[in-house]
Amino acid sequence: MSEYNLDMLKDTHLYKEIHEQPQVLSALIERELRHARELAAAMRERDVQLVVIAARGSSDNAARYANYLLGSMNGLVVSLATPSLFTIYQRPPSLGRALVLGISQSGKSPDIVAVLAEARRQGALTAAITNALASDLARQADHVIDLGAGVERSVAATKTYTSALLAIALLSACLSDGSEMLDALQRVPQAAVQTLDVEGQVAGIVQRYRYMHDCVVIGRGYNYATAFELALKLKELTYTMVEPYSSAD
Amino acid sequence: MSEYNLDMLKDTHLYKEIHEQPQVLSALIERELRHARELAAAMRERDVQLVVIAARGSSDNAARYANYLLGSMNGLVVSLATPSLFTIYQRPPSLGRALVLGISQSGKSPDIVAVLAEARRQGALTAAITNALASDLARQADHVIDLGAGVERSVAATKTYTSALLAIALLSACLSDGSEMLDALQRVPQAAVQTLDVEGQVAGIVQRYRYMHDCVVIGRGYNYATAFELALKLKELTYTMVEPYSSAD
Repeated sequence: MSEYNLDMLKDTHLYKEIHEQPQVLSALIERELRHARELAAAMRERDVQLVVIAARGSSDNAARYANYLLGSMNGLVVSLATPSLFTIYQRPPSLGRALVLGISQSGKSPDIVAVLAEARRQGALTAAITNALASDLARQADHVIDLGAGVERSVAATKTYTSALLAIALLSACLSDGSEMLDALQRVPQAAVQTLDVEGQVAGIVQRYRYMHDCVVIGRGYNYATAFELALKLKELTYTMVEPYSSAD
Repeated sequence: MSEYNLDMLKDTHLYKEIHEQPQVLSALIERELRHARELAAAMRERDVQLVVIAARGSSDNAARYANYLLGSMNGLVVSLATPSLFTIYQRPPSLGRALVLGISQSGKSPDIVAVLAEARRQGALTAAITNALASDLARQADHVIDLGAGVERSVAATKTYTSALLAIALLSACLSDGSEMLDALQRVPQAAVQTLDVEGQVAGIVQRYRYMHDCVVIGRGYNYATAFELALKLKELTYTMVEPYSSAD
């Protein structure tokens, strides 16, 4: 793709939203650290050892990140909820001792909302990570971390995905004692700026993949979520067959 | 594929192992019902509400089935363990209140064994579903359900996959009070015979897919695991790009 084509992209919602990320991430830390601390305190008070997460699509990939991060940093077991259990089969599992966390940009997905409603009915601690404070999902949650990313017009989620990852990382940092991780997270917006600065180079490199038909994206551990999200993004935007793989498989 | 080609298949390990399934399934019920009952009793005694499953490949797809079945029939929360947390990052989550279940045909996979060893160290209840009673995995488990499927020579798992599903279903039936499900499971080997009887028809139908390059397999709920396993099987055996999808996504 030539520089000329990169210029043409600059009017798309997708391009603009990608470039909003540093500002969105920076504002998220400023505004939501307090809410992450409150949620972490509520989890400690209830001695939560299990986190059940309900999410779909890009948010489900953010849940994969939470699976690794909350497991490795905070010793929590994470279960990715199967919303069908709450909607189709109507035999919900016992959630009383868990934190039940819904991740949804729109906060509207009925089956994600149903998982939180059932958790609330059972007396479990509930939380939402969402870009829509006035949504059904936020209303079912005891604690809300607001992505505050502004309207996302592109079908491919970008700023809401990376801000969901940061929200999860904030929670993890608040659950652990050290301030080292919080310091590192404060540097994320600047790192995003530096990453976006290489777009000219990337535009040169991608030319050779123009006629790509199949693609495999490989990752492991913290980057397993990224492999899934990159595969989803390529499928949504380029209509190629793209598959994520664990390098362990 | 003509009848002639079907005849040629009959000498392969894969074909023979597919046809061993009714006998393997029938023997499994006969031999392992007692062990499934003992495991169910141990779970009730400890008031287990969470099952953490460690598995890879086809066994990981069996774990997806367990996720739905133990959730919908038995009200259990299921977490599919991320073995990396036990091997790469070395910061294992707290497992004390869970049943930690390893599923592995060979019982040899070092990261699956590591998850069970850590669970044992933490005092959690452990169990294995395996085709290798003398394996490291079986040695780490308080309870073992032996698939007893005989040696599996084909790279593509068939009889060990379906027998792992049946082992999970036996456990689920033993955890619930009714005998209705156990009665239904007794009819599974005969249903397998009937399914294998349609192979001539299938051989006719598949001809039109001979030059297929891409494929998507769709399933939901109890059949979500089947969609993943069928996709894996097609990838292993036909070298096409095959992707499993939830019909909800």
